[in-house]
Amino acid sequence: MKETIIAPGATLGILGGGQLGRMIASAAARLGLKVHVFNDTPASPAFALADATTCAPFTDEAALRSFAGSVDVATYEFENVPREAAALVAGLVPLRPGVGALATSQDRLAEKRFIADLGIATAPFRPVDDAGDLQAALAAIGMPAILKTRRFGYDGKGQAAIRKAGDADGALAAMKGAPSILEGFVDFVCELSVVAARAPDGSFAAFDICENRHENHILALTSVPAAVSAATAQQAREIAHAIAGALDYVGVFAVELFLTRDAAGAESLVVNEIAPRVHNSGHWTDFGAQTSQFEQHVRAVCGWPLGPAGRYGRVAMRNLIGDDVETWQHHLADPQARLTLYGKEEARPGRKMGHVTLLRDPE
Amino acid sequence: MKETIIAPGATLGILGGGQLGRMIASAAARLGLKVHVFNDTPASPAFALADATTCAPFTDEAALRSFAGSVDVATYEFENVPREAAALVAGLVPLRPGVGALATSQDRLAEKRFIADLGIATAPFRPVDDAGDLQAALAAIGMPAILKTRRFGYDGKGQAAIRKAGDADGALAAMKGAPSILEGFVDFVCELSVVAARAPDGSFAAFDICENRHENHILALTSVPAAVSAATAQQAREIAHAIAGALDYVGVFAVELFLTRDAAGAESLVVNEIAPRVHNSGHWTDFGAQTSQFEQHVRAVCGWPLGPAGRYGRVAMRNLIGDDVETWQHHLADPQARLTLYGKEEARPGRKMGHVTLLRDPE
Repeated sequence: MKETIIAPGATLGILGGGQLGRMIASAAARLGLKVHVFNDTPASPAFALADATTCAPFTDEAALRSFAGSVDVATYEFENVPREAAALVAGLVPLRPGVGALATSQDRLAEKRFIADLGIATAPFRPVDDAGDLQAALAAIGMPAILKTRRFGYDGKGQAAIRKAGDADGALAAMKGAPSILEGFVDFVCELSVVAARAPDGSFAAFDICENRHENHILALTSVPAAVSAATAQQAREIAHAIAGALDYVGVFAVELFLTRDAAGAESLVVNEIAPRVHNSGHWTDFGAQTSQFEQHVRAVCGWPLGPAGRYGRVAMRNLIGDDVETWQHHLADPQARLTLYGKEEARPGRKMGHVTLLRDPE
Repeated sequence: MKETIIAPGATLGILGGGQLGRMIASAAARLGLKVHVFNDTPASPAFALADATTCAPFTDEAALRSFAGSVDVATYEFENVPREAAALVAGLVPLRPGVGALATSQDRLAEKRFIADLGIATAPFRPVDDAGDLQAALAAIGMPAILKTRRFGYDGKGQAAIRKAGDADGALAAMKGAPSILEGFVDFVCELSVVAARAPDGSFAAFDICENRHENHILALTSVPAAVSAATAQQAREIAHAIAGALDYVGVFAVELFLTRDAAGAESLVVNEIAPRVHNSGHWTDFGAQTSQFEQHVRAVCGWPLGPAGRYGRVAMRNLIGDDVETWQHHLADPQARLTLYGKEEARPGRKMGHVTLLRDPE
């Protein structure tokens, strides 16, 4: 295993080549690092900003070994990097965050159990491998509920709602035999996230709590600060801190939360999921915070001091999805808007093409 | 000549591959552009952030043609791009800023005459091609004075001070026969610069006036706002506006100025030189202004609306020159500091390795 003191001039390896990798690469370059991106598709937005690229399947052990041999520290930018690939790299070079965080977040059941074991609230859940499991789970949790594959889901893929008994067979069929999990619906007021960073020495910095609005299961809008009580914001930070500590996490991560409010107006938080990477709901930090989540991730992964996480005024971030990107000229003409595009060739429906950060009180 | 409406996905060509090109490339990538960098040395900081690179001499016409054929619009990041190379590219693809601005700034005599013809104050100057010219020029201007080559000087190179008659022969010899210019000393209080942008439609946006401190002829520190009267700041902007208009300039540029103060305390401005490119004294805009000079340059060159040029509080920018770069950890630990490194391998004395932006009043 290589020495883990990383200095400018060293090479950061990134597993995955999407827009998150692209923005990490940009932040790393600003800090004088070289970047080597490994991804399995030629049209990878991060390739354009990398010093070196490897385009190979995540099952190509020789390519992974060569990649690991060329970098001083490695990270990943999406949580569906196969665990075996991550483990192979982690055996050759420091991988931050580690395989444990990846494995936990890759499996919805393991993730829910991990969170529940920390004494943190989640939606009710039961493992489902077959029709018998599903009936038992529905009996325990009730309806409505949502059946999800345990692995490889994102942006609402691999999910099926069960609102009445007649939905159960179709939902199970939609899982295509994959190990699954039934989750109870949470009657939430809004969706929140905490984006935070933890360094190898355990130091921790959270950005302000985000309020997120999804459309078609894809994040549409993040607003900061979230309209929650100070106590709830503090609790969200404590949840993130506890999760990061339990995972011995290094890097930026997000905890997605549901906010519920009881009849008396009391707020509670329920963890939805953990993203062991920089997160779409943290894109606002790039212009709206003292340190962007991308630089913060690079700092943490390199073992450098975390940057200040303060916020500049009220901030909103809107994703540009599919044809939304055609509004780019409008955003360039708006003095409160800061435009970021990902360099993707084709604006397919549902595809994240870029985002706009809106600075409502810039000073 | 290609169509000049540039949209994200188009390719921006950059002549020159130093840190200025690197930071332009980074800003262009954020706006969804592809970047092709042309430079004559393999160890070019901008290459790492480019989609395509050409490493060839600026005299290689075939390479220049191929470069021009691969881009939708081109710019340059240093003013010593040979005029012939720029003209060749400009004949094939829009070059912004144009050859005229380059040619004017490449020749100190042409530049001084251009400025003086606008009715803007410069140091007294005379062309010097031989010892006879020099004696006549010294008689007209007096001493101390400074002899400079007309072309290819930067950071104090190609300059020799003449403080007494005995210095003249040595100063002339130092020019090595190159066409030269004698300039009178300006008894200045401080050095200032205006960094501003002009778009193809003539719209204009100036960042706040910078106060610059040089050490060993290299910019060491920029502070914003400069400690000058509002009237002087306004005059500096008007000078920049007049120069840009007269050059039909497109892109970001800097005007370096001397501030003088008479016995009664009245301030005057004397133009030192024009830099037809993003400028070291504008690096503070990257974290300290609403739009960075690099994004502003890309916007102007692409014919997009200029961004807002407002400033976030008091800002200072310190260059990290040579071994200064070894202080990188100190800056990362300073919550007011934002670090930018250029990815250069070797920290030679006098070499610009990076810079630190200090945000004194971030909100």
